[in-house]
Amino acid sequence: MNLDDLYLQRLAARTGAILLDRDWRLVTAESCTGGWIAKTLTDVPGCSSWYLGGVVTYSNALKQTLLGVRPSTLAVHGAVSEACAREMALGALKSLGGQVAVAVTGIAGPGGGQPGKPVGTVWFGWAWQADRNETGRIETGRTRTHVAMETFAGDREAVRRSTVDRALAELARLA
Amino acid sequence: MNLDDLYLQRLAARTGAILLDRDWRLVTAESCTGGWIAKTLTDVPGCSSWYLGGVVTYSNALKQTLLGVRPSTLAVHGAVSEACAREMALGALKSLGGQVAVAVTGIAGPGGGQPGKPVGTVWFGWAWQADRNETGRIETGRTRTHVAMETFAGDREAVRRSTVDRALAELARLA
Repeated sequence: MNLDDLYLQRLAARTGAILLDRDWRLVTAESCTGGWIAKTLTDVPGCSSWYLGGVVTYSNALKQTLLGVRPSTLAVHGAVSEACAREMALGALKSLGGQVAVAVTGIAGPGGGQPGKPVGTVWFGWAWQADRNETGRIETGRTRTHVAMETFAGDREAVRRSTVDRALAELARLA
Repeated sequence: MNLDDLYLQRLAARTGAILLDRDWRLVTAESCTGGWIAKTLTDVPGCSSWYLGGVVTYSNALKQTLLGVRPSTLAVHGAVSEACAREMALGALKSLGGQVAVAVTGIAGPGGGQPGKPVGTVWFGWAWQADRNETGRIETGRTRTHVAMETFAGDREAVRRSTVDRALAELARLA
């Protein structure tokens, strides 16, 4: 394992420890990273205590059938959009369960860049159960979301790696 | 990217070229590899021509809800079993679409070993559309399955890496 992978694994372990402390179970919905977030999380021994699983919705059809992304969202805004990232995160929470979800959808390259959406454009969505009682436990099913966009530099591997990094780092902050 | 990762990426590219030649779309269902197979496939630029997506069913509950693995299979044979691997592969084909599916379920360690199922035990399932006409195109919806078991040596990373390798290599042979 190289140093970059080791860094991601440490980040995943730290994120997992925070989730475990909150008694939160995580689910993932990945497009451009294609499973790399899930792979990084499951590098951590014992991750089944805080990670339930995820989906890799590489095709737009699977974004609809597995996550409930609306056809109109894809038609109007495209798969790489704030609306799609938000719907993916909410859909993951609904379809897979858990208390917190992270979703990513972007253009890893080398092809696929569009006007206004260059290679390296990535939209992130996080969704989580908002309400906790005084001990931090979930009390109701109300959800909150947070979204972000980044334009990462570098080749396909660099864009994907930066996406995994950002997705997990924000998760650690939100939990 | 280290040499081991480069090897897996080359294997994924070769597998993808074979699938593209057959006009087969691939889907994945992963437990112990936790997305590493999907990550390796999506390392390949242009993989959306032959890879639709997949699920990471790390929890047994998701094996049931996303892939239709029967509760009785999990209760009688356990998640790391021939029956579960076969049901995961068939479930992936049914739930995600495509013409060929690969599923893996195993014990990556360091914990989780059981009597008769030591750490490193992995069950593989492959399912594919059996019937093609003279041009190799699919004609009917009949499916075939193939399963295999391996006991891999090494630590968590080595077991998971060997699992990705075996899953993709067999896929290239079946296609």
